[in-house]
Amino acid sequence: MNGARALLTTLVDAGVDVCFSNPGTSEMHFVAALDDVPEMRGILTLFEGVATGAADGYARMAGRPAATLLHLGPGLANGLANLHNARRARTPLVNIVGDHATYHARFDAPLQSDIASLARPVSGWYRVTARADDVGADAAAAVDAAFGPPGRVATLVLPADSSWAESAGGPGQPLPRPGPPCVPAETIDGVARALRSGRPAALLLGGTALRTRALRAASRVSGAAGAPLLCETFPARLERGAGIPGVDRLGYLAEFAQAQLAGLEHLILVDAKSPVSFFAYPGKPSDLVPPGCTVHTLVRPGEDAPAALEALAEALGAAHQGAVSAAAWRPDRPTGTLTAETLAAAIGAVLPDNAVVVDEGNTSGLFVAGATAGAPPHDWLTLTGGAIGLGLPVATGAAVAAPDRPVVCLQADGSAMYTLQALWTQAREGLGVTTVVLANQSYAILNMELQRVGADAGGPLARRLLDLTDPELDFVALAHGMGVPGRRVETAEELTAALEASLAEPGPALIEVPLRAGRR
Amino acid sequence: MNGARALLTTLVDAGVDVCFSNPGTSEMHFVAALDDVPEMRGILTLFEGVATGAADGYARMAGRPAATLLHLGPGLANGLANLHNARRARTPLVNIVGDHATYHARFDAPLQSDIASLARPVSGWYRVTARADDVGADAAAAVDAAFGPPGRVATLVLPADSSWAESAGGPGQPLPRPGPPCVPAETIDGVARALRSGRPAALLLGGTALRTRALRAASRVSGAAGAPLLCETFPARLERGAGIPGVDRLGYLAEFAQAQLAGLEHLILVDAKSPVSFFAYPGKPSDLVPPGCTVHTLVRPGEDAPAALEALAEALGAAHQGAVSAAAWRPDRPTGTLTAETLAAAIGAVLPDNAVVVDEGNTSGLFVAGATAGAPPHDWLTLTGGAIGLGLPVATGAAVAAPDRPVVCLQADGSAMYTLQALWTQAREGLGVTTVVLANQSYAILNMELQRVGADAGGPLARRLLDLTDPELDFVALAHGMGVPGRRVETAEELTAALEASLAEPGPALIEVPLRAGRR
Repeated sequence: MNGARALLTTLVDAGVDVCFSNPGTSEMHFVAALDDVPEMRGILTLFEGVATGAADGYARMAGRPAATLLHLGPGLANGLANLHNARRARTPLVNIVGDHATYHARFDAPLQSDIASLARPVSGWYRVTARADDVGADAAAAVDAAFGPPGRVATLVLPADSSWAESAGGPGQPLPRPGPPCVPAETIDGVARALRSGRPAALLLGGTALRTRALRAASRVSGAAGAPLLCETFPARLERGAGIPGVDRLGYLAEFAQAQLAGLEHLILVDAKSPVSFFAYPGKPSDLVPPGCTVHTLVRPGEDAPAALEALAEALGAAHQGAVSAAAWRPDRPTGTLTAETLAAAIGAVLPDNAVVVDEGNTSGLFVAGATAGAPPHDWLTLTGGAIGLGLPVATGAAVAAPDRPVVCLQADGSAMYTLQALWTQAREGLGVTTVVLANQSYAILNMELQRVGADAGGPLARRLLDLTDPELDFVALAHGMGVPGRRVETAEELTAALEASLAEPGPALIEVPLRAGRR
Repeated sequence: MNGARALLTTLVDAGVDVCFSNPGTSEMHFVAALDDVPEMRGILTLFEGVATGAADGYARMAGRPAATLLHLGPGLANGLANLHNARRARTPLVNIVGDHATYHARFDAPLQSDIASLARPVSGWYRVTARADDVGADAAAAVDAAFGPPGRVATLVLPADSSWAESAGGPGQPLPRPGPPCVPAETIDGVARALRSGRPAALLLGGTALRTRALRAASRVSGAAGAPLLCETFPARLERGAGIPGVDRLGYLAEFAQAQLAGLEHLILVDAKSPVSFFAYPGKPSDLVPPGCTVHTLVRPGEDAPAALEALAEALGAAHQGAVSAAAWRPDRPTGTLTAETLAAAIGAVLPDNAVVVDEGNTSGLFVAGATAGAPPHDWLTLTGGAIGLGLPVATGAAVAAPDRPVVCLQADGSAMYTLQALWTQAREGLGVTTVVLANQSYAILNMELQRVGADAGGPLARRLLDLTDPELDFVALAHGMGVPGRRVETAEELTAALEASLAEPGPALIEVPLRAGRR
């Protein structure tokens, strides 16, 4: 078999059987080999940022990596922003970048570029598979690296001649996959001592500590120690809703996060980073840990968070039934004008059981988390790395990973335009994604930030650069252009009805929700 | 004044007075300063690849750089593919990337990334302006670097605190700009000797050798030496049409290029690279220079191409009136079915005087160059680096640079989807761009390449990954969604009429031209 077939066989044998693709000439042998290895599901995207974001969303829900297929340096470049988000999410991802044949590089053909320099900032692992004989082994190593733990973006560069030549090595075999390493007992003892001190303390949960088992253990700890449960600002995947212990997400705005952290003397990190301001602002601190607060790391990325939290609960003598879960609760069906509040209530009123919510709602989505806190259990996926244009692709990948679960994508209008091509893939694959476009016709968050950084926000030239009217975007037309049915709603009643209708139908749909921007 | 104002003042003083922007929080002081320096025209794009491609198109037509404004590493990443094209075009471009405040970097906030690693592959010059006092001087150095010659992408990273702090240095002053260096006389003599040998020879023109003055001199050389004029496959800007000497562009397919070069014993490079295959193919050569052919470099990038060609013409004793220009000629207005041929004839029949044609027509646009060879003089801008998604943004920037010239963008459908957001900026700015979407509903070039690389093209799974039906894209709806009027034509007559109507109207328009893909 040739290198391409050895690669595909290695991947599917390792359980990596979806490939979000945007191929070019140098990837043609990979594409041709899809018919030899039909266990691999090749999914075409119209832009690489859709492929990488979909691979991120897929792995967040499937718990195992998808592959991507990108075309040389420029194709990789188009996918980098969502690889940045995947890196921050610690998502396992096998990022395959086709390249010129090894001997062709020295001719500096037009598409030649420094792929290593482009890939390294987002890649936890990087290798060029320079011989067809090694493709299988290299692919297996990429899968190993992607899984971690913690998960990472493993970039495998596949020169065209490694793909087309016979591979004496054939398929490779990933290593056995041991569980995540345990947190040392002395670490747990140290944290238990700090929590027993009775001084003000909180747990900051992130990453793998945001799934139900870990949350139950964390809730027991919280009850025993009187320490509230905080959650990182942008979790990769948070399980929440009725019957699951709730957490208090740290605010995006530093002022809010500081208020949440004020007075703490012990902050316990559980697969989370010590809190810092998302951006720097003149005269404001970057480090959000209050003065005099000691930061303890209970769980490092890749370690076994649920086991550590359970051990901590035992060490504190927490009751086995001590977890406090969110009560079942839904807002009333809203009526009247569409606002951020009625939008939130509409989603809270109808969010189905077992939904996946992808949240790139930004300013307009601020109230949705509160309105869904008591909804039936669901997953919440967020903008982990701050690189906008994540929502639609992540929703696409999540729907591939979880075809039986309804996916709701809360998508701010400005951010939607970075990777809107995802709608086409949703239509082609018949994915059950309901995209709710929060259309305030502005980069509203920037109008706010313009004032927060201390800049004079008064000028018309500055404001025009943050404004999305003139012309207004028509998302129903844009969706239609990519084969996705859409409608624009004008009242809260229409929104609630449209959500219910879309969630009851198979396939994708888009709902445009006009909202007044904060400043207008 | 603060650093942001010092930066903007430096740029406009240096003649860089357009900034294609997609800002975020770290760029808010730059945005706010636009009202203090209204000579700078800030143009909002909805995606960074539009900003960088527009800056490329602007400079190709204006002959001086535009600035970009991008948001940290992920914003830069989204703009890299078109910066790759700009690098290959040797376009002067001041690429401004906002970053976190210098002191914020160590906190590894979500958007922190290795900007240097991302920027270096596309940047001929790179600097972080780490102190507000230096912003003016650094910006002036960026402008110097961008101009070259040859032109290059100069990336200036602007940390937020360099932007917001007072700048003691104030605005900077670029160096005086001397003309391009002359080609040494002995180089010209050497080439003249080779051409006088009487052995088969050709000139391969690229870069700055493709403007009318250089083409006239090259045509004199061609006549005197009996050496045909070839042109690089993907010129940044080629002046052509009635009254201008024509050139024979090297084919994209290596087989065609080899046929054009066959039998040559001397190949004279005039601001062009020695010809190589665009991609590698099993068993086929990468270097397209025929065996036994000597390659001579007359003009290196940045050197004075027209002067060198004129000196060479004199050395060969070429007649001053010896240039042979293309005759005025137009195809008849086509009738009937839309095909690649009738499409080409329609454009040839109506292309207005002084038009700018941006060509990302790929397979479907193959015949347009021939059908416009005798049209009134016009400029032809192409996909210099092979990174698709260039057409719409370059057309946008070209229209900003040349508001009195009609811009026609030949845009293949698959490639259109990478940077379609450019349409919105065209609508907002009222730019006179007629986009002709060549809609064959496939990555047709890849169907061809699938066979050319030797891969088995037979499989349905492979073919589905190159197919853009299911669902079909509706470009009229997509254009409408971004405020651009569009129509779909069904016959050659309708196309010709639609082109004339659009070219007669101010503002942008889109014409969708359904074409049958080669293989279907």
